[in-house]
Amino acid sequence: MMEQRLSVVALGVNDLARSREFYESGLGWSVAGGTNENIVFFQLGGIVLGLYPEDLLAEDATIKNDRSGSFRGVTLAYNTRAKADVDTVIQFAKNAGGRIVKPGQEVFWGGYSGYFADPDEHLWEVAWNPYWGLNDAGELLLPDVEE
Amino acid sequence: MMEQRLSVVALGVNDLARSREFYESGLGWSVAGGTNENIVFFQLGGIVLGLYPEDLLAEDATIKNDRSGSFRGVTLAYNTRAKADVDTVIQFAKNAGGRIVKPGQEVFWGGYSGYFADPDEHLWEVAWNPYWGLNDAGELLLPDVEE
Repeated sequence: MMEQRLSVVALGVNDLARSREFYESGLGWSVAGGTNENIVFFQLGGIVLGLYPEDLLAEDATIKNDRSGSFRGVTLAYNTRAKADVDTVIQFAKNAGGRIVKPGQEVFWGGYSGYFADPDEHLWEVAWNPYWGLNDAGELLLPDVEE
Repeated sequence: MMEQRLSVVALGVNDLARSREFYESGLGWSVAGGTNENIVFFQLGGIVLGLYPEDLLAEDATIKNDRSGSFRGVTLAYNTRAKADVDTVIQFAKNAGGRIVKPGQEVFWGGYSGYFADPDEHLWEVAWNPYWGLNDAGELLLPDVEE
């Protein structure tokens, strides 16, 4: 099954430094742990907002970012408590009428993840991240950036 | 200023009944109060996932949904505690480098809202909803659907 919750909203961006500047210096938001020159995170309540280069976000989902409108440039992520849950959830979503976009697989950052699409091609990543835990309420709470 | 939080993720859909079926019957999620034949809400932790016809979502943001890729079909919303905060936040986001897409205005459902775009045209609605309150932590918690 798939719990009724959300872990991450990832926004595809064309210039990561510019986007970080907007949210961090402009809006005054604080970046969270894990932020570096390649990806930016903000804690928003129990979920995380991620900024990531749009081409790489599309590549991660194995979707062509050809500006034809097929890739929306936004993905949602559901983080699991256990690695084995990723395949289970993706199969469950398929049985529910979703489309498997990318079967679960090992990813370069050390986790395991895949993607499914809802009926309108909104993309959900299903991810297990060994460095990120969920609390009992299912919230994803990142550490603050170390000073 | 704009607090570091998120109230709603709205997904544009082409067949609301089909999408509701996927999330509700397929994934087994429970709809929240306010759900009707025109819009569907799910409570995901302290934020709300909304399903809304994509053309109407674009219209609400005053963006042409011409499939050229300019409209992503996803919007984020930041709900304010007071009506007057909407204009303040939109102006603040503009000063931070955002683009005002729709100035704050009265909307048909009884609230007051407008939109700004971040540097990559990700749309943020800034909304005051007299029927929806935020708790002290800034979470938007909808009532359950009445049986």
